[in-house]
Amino acid sequence: MPDSAPVASVVPTTEAIAKLWPLGSEAVRIEDGFWAERQRLNREVTIPAGWAELERAGALDNFRIAAGRAEGEFRGMRFHDSDVYKWLEAVGWELGRAPSPELERLAREATELVGAAQLADGYVNTYCQLTDASWRYTDLALGHELYCAGHLLQAAVAHARSGGDGELVAIARRSADEIDATFGPGRREGLDGHAEVEPALVELYRVTGERRYLELASVLVERRGHGHLNANPRGAVYSQDHEPVRASASLAGHAVRALYLMCGVTDVAVETGDTELLDVAVRLWDDTAATKTYITGGLGSRHEHESFGDAYELPPDTAYCETCAAIASVMWSWRLLLATGDARYADSIERTLYNGFLAGISLDGLRFFYVNPLESPGGHERQSWFECACCPPNVMRLLASLHHYLATDTDDGVQVHQYATGTIEARAATLRVATGYPWSGRVEVEVAATRPEPWALALRVPAWCDGARLTVNGEEAEAAPVERTWSAGDRVVLDLPLAPRLTAPHPRVEAVRGGVAVERGPLVYCIEGDDVAIDPGAPLGERERPDLLGGVVTVETPATAVPYFAWGNRGAGAMRVWLRAR
Amino acid sequence: MPDSAPVASVVPTTEAIAKLWPLGSEAVRIEDGFWAERQRLNREVTIPAGWAELERAGALDNFRIAAGRAEGEFRGMRFHDSDVYKWLEAVGWELGRAPSPELERLAREATELVGAAQLADGYVNTYCQLTDASWRYTDLALGHELYCAGHLLQAAVAHARSGGDGELVAIARRSADEIDATFGPGRREGLDGHAEVEPALVELYRVTGERRYLELASVLVERRGHGHLNANPRGAVYSQDHEPVRASASLAGHAVRALYLMCGVTDVAVETGDTELLDVAVRLWDDTAATKTYITGGLGSRHEHESFGDAYELPPDTAYCETCAAIASVMWSWRLLLATGDARYADSIERTLYNGFLAGISLDGLRFFYVNPLESPGGHERQSWFECACCPPNVMRLLASLHHYLATDTDDGVQVHQYATGTIEARAATLRVATGYPWSGRVEVEVAATRPEPWALALRVPAWCDGARLTVNGEEAEAAPVERTWSAGDRVVLDLPLAPRLTAPHPRVEAVRGGVAVERGPLVYCIEGDDVAIDPGAPLGERERPDLLGGVVTVETPATAVPYFAWGNRGAGAMRVWLRAR
Repeated sequence: MPDSAPVASVVPTTEAIAKLWPLGSEAVRIEDGFWAERQRLNREVTIPAGWAELERAGALDNFRIAAGRAEGEFRGMRFHDSDVYKWLEAVGWELGRAPSPELERLAREATELVGAAQLADGYVNTYCQLTDASWRYTDLALGHELYCAGHLLQAAVAHARSGGDGELVAIARRSADEIDATFGPGRREGLDGHAEVEPALVELYRVTGERRYLELASVLVERRGHGHLNANPRGAVYSQDHEPVRASASLAGHAVRALYLMCGVTDVAVETGDTELLDVAVRLWDDTAATKTYITGGLGSRHEHESFGDAYELPPDTAYCETCAAIASVMWSWRLLLATGDARYADSIERTLYNGFLAGISLDGLRFFYVNPLESPGGHERQSWFECACCPPNVMRLLASLHHYLATDTDDGVQVHQYATGTIEARAATLRVATGYPWSGRVEVEVAATRPEPWALALRVPAWCDGARLTVNGEEAEAAPVERTWSAGDRVVLDLPLAPRLTAPHPRVEAVRGGVAVERGPLVYCIEGDDVAIDPGAPLGERERPDLLGGVVTVETPATAVPYFAWGNRGAGAMRVWLRAR
Repeated sequence: MPDSAPVASVVPTTEAIAKLWPLGSEAVRIEDGFWAERQRLNREVTIPAGWAELERAGALDNFRIAAGRAEGEFRGMRFHDSDVYKWLEAVGWELGRAPSPELERLAREATELVGAAQLADGYVNTYCQLTDASWRYTDLALGHELYCAGHLLQAAVAHARSGGDGELVAIARRSADEIDATFGPGRREGLDGHAEVEPALVELYRVTGERRYLELASVLVERRGHGHLNANPRGAVYSQDHEPVRASASLAGHAVRALYLMCGVTDVAVETGDTELLDVAVRLWDDTAATKTYITGGLGSRHEHESFGDAYELPPDTAYCETCAAIASVMWSWRLLLATGDARYADSIERTLYNGFLAGISLDGLRFFYVNPLESPGGHERQSWFECACCPPNVMRLLASLHHYLATDTDDGVQVHQYATGTIEARAATLRVATGYPWSGRVEVEVAATRPEPWALALRVPAWCDGARLTVNGEEAEAAPVERTWSAGDRVVLDLPLAPRLTAPHPRVEAVRGGVAVERGPLVYCIEGDDVAIDPGAPLGERERPDLLGGVVTVETPATAVPYFAWGNRGAGAMRVWLRAR
């Protein structure tokens, strides 16, 4: 464990159950290639446009009115504040990557507004403050008050870790203290219908050292499933209040709520050393991965209540797969990766990042999918913003913090989980990574500096990959962690064959039975356009098929499959991932 | 001109304008291959099943009731009788191909029933007879009485040419005489809203030599467009009564009506030597081919009123393309081919037969499409019969007479228009044709017997074909009619390259602009299945596309296009002909 906490999204304390140590912005830089371009676009285009959208939608005005600096009525959904907080969190991580006077100015303006709107007792919720002060905490099932506060805390954590001036942390602490005073151990047995404050409280505990926040998070996790949200008209399962977390065998209800809850559950488990609770998280993750996850990493099978479906209920066309659910999945998997060191969590993060998550934003960085089906008859279009705008700023905060998810270290070495061209400064060594990933499967790692003692370099070989080859200074090695005494200038090359492959669905997924998906490396492909697009320059093959349709000659037309993440950028045409296998 | 009339669908008289002489069942036999199998299935499966369907639907019972042999009420559409007549025509052509005691028995039963139902004055229409005798000729626009009579006449012509016993011809003459007595020259200026009796009368004239029938047909053709069908609630254009035929620049209204009318117009023109009227037909055919015909040969763009659309209004998904319209188109084109000798009519027949027509029947010969779109989102299924059952027996009569459309002769030689393995006994020679068409483009013609004088062999080179090669006894020849002194044993080989090709739509067809269709030889292909079907055994290519979607690697998935005619035989999935061109 290094001396100072990294500028990272999740930073377990020294008391936590943790196998891997996160490396943050000061240690990992994505300098070129696929994700570098997306981080650049996020910083230069998406986040500034997001501010404009927040202004247009009235999210900032709500704070101005609450602060007595403007007149008007509350605008937007009850949880409109959370969009500002998520945007603030994104900017926090951006400022941790590199200074930006303009982003810092906007962040200060937002922070100052939140502080000015905050009530003396620490409560801040512009919906409540602008509509009906007596509403406070009267509709915990659907009110989103702790949910909004959670995002405020997460924003504060990002700014704190990035070296912010502490104002946002002070605001967050006042908010957390107010919540603790209201719902803390031995007080009102309430909890929020939308989980979010739970992981946020643990993170704020990690930043501030205030153990009450961890205890509050723990209490909130344990309260779930005991009928405290009975008033929820969408049923207890919607808010994961149908059973205690520890008794759960499978995620159910609103997918984003369930996944944020699992982030909190995992955070509480590792910080309290509760291996039983951690086992619950692992068990639920396994079940989710095996029975409720789309090939894109998308989660949430039903539009109704934005919820998980039954096991293997994974329809491609009516899939919900909210962009926020993909983001929450990355957040949860990362927590379990740190806790266990198990590479399958990094596999899941990869699948989700490149597919289910990345489809959520247009190539120009200005439009968003809220829902990410695996098949569309056409007409599904990205929007520049939403009335319920949870997804856009959520995309911003994940892209701004993406480098946090690339690598970890331990006392014994460095683990590279995701591949991007850049620099990794770990305790044992400084690595320079060069790769054309995900288009090319070659990953070149140069040891730029190293400690004299031996350490192990672990480069993840994705589960989808057959035939990975590793060389160390040109010599073939096993594609496994390489422990040795390293010298500056050592070169490790990992070759991951990216040949396109066909993937059959799980036989129990009825909706796509008999179908087949095209994948290449970490990317899921889709056929876009009105059915199949023909390349007029490509040759047309023909084939005698005595077995088919009474005996016909078929014409083989090369159809072009494109990465799923890029779909819907050329008009809202038809698209599908699962293709029919002849 | 040979001594006796052939057993053919259209047999111009010696006075007619005619460039080519039809060769009927006694001269042309399809003995193997693509169409032989379809003729066999039609005879052994489809036609017998058709009888059962006619029984089930009450079409035969209507006659039994009208004949006083059964009790009950009329069942079916007003024009239900016509289904019996078309079935009878199909059997007539079958009996002309080869004897069949069973088919002959059924045909006799039907003929006897029709005769028994026929009124003393020659009128026979079970709808009128079973519902309201006073209805006769009160709703000419939509009543279908002459339409039904027309199909009766066509059935009689088929049986007469096939050597039938004359009973059906006697019935048909009584019917025609009654119509002539009612609507003949100088009598009531009526006509039927659904053309059909016009070509039928000309054909009956050809069989019987009764010139009144030709004159009646001529009068009916000329009456159109003079407001006699004003009562039609679907508008005059529905029944081609909006303008005189001679003034028409483009076909409009109900497609099958318009096309049957044009058969009659062409028949009248050639038999009366009216070159001006023939020019009208040619002009309308040209306009139809250029602006209103689908790539499948299908006709009729609109579901509303089953009608033609405007020029270049050829939407693929909402196309009507009634199977009967494809059949009527073949009938019309054949008449113009005989009259002019112009191979483009044979080209059109080929395109229509292999695509727009043949899709109308399932591979098992038991189910039918009424509507033949070029694109379906799924759910379009062939039915075993229809309440409005015009198409199934129409398919039967065309398949039973298909060999009529293969070849013609003249005093100077033999013309082969369509390719099938079999024998052609023309005046000049007997030819044995062997071909794997349409799968293979090689057509081998052996001169089995020949007259000693020179004659010309014309093998059509389809308009779609580039690079046709012809050899005569192994020696390269020009791919054009070969005139020479032939000897028995001479071998002519025509090689038509069938390489799959991409076809762009006419630029004025807005609905498919930018699209591309796959064709191979005479066959139009489609992509069937839910978008694109993947062959798991085929290799997957990949391609760097810096130009696409910000730079991606695409995966080239071989999609299998199948002949359009065969679609919808593996469930009612999605289908499309026009594909998007990248």
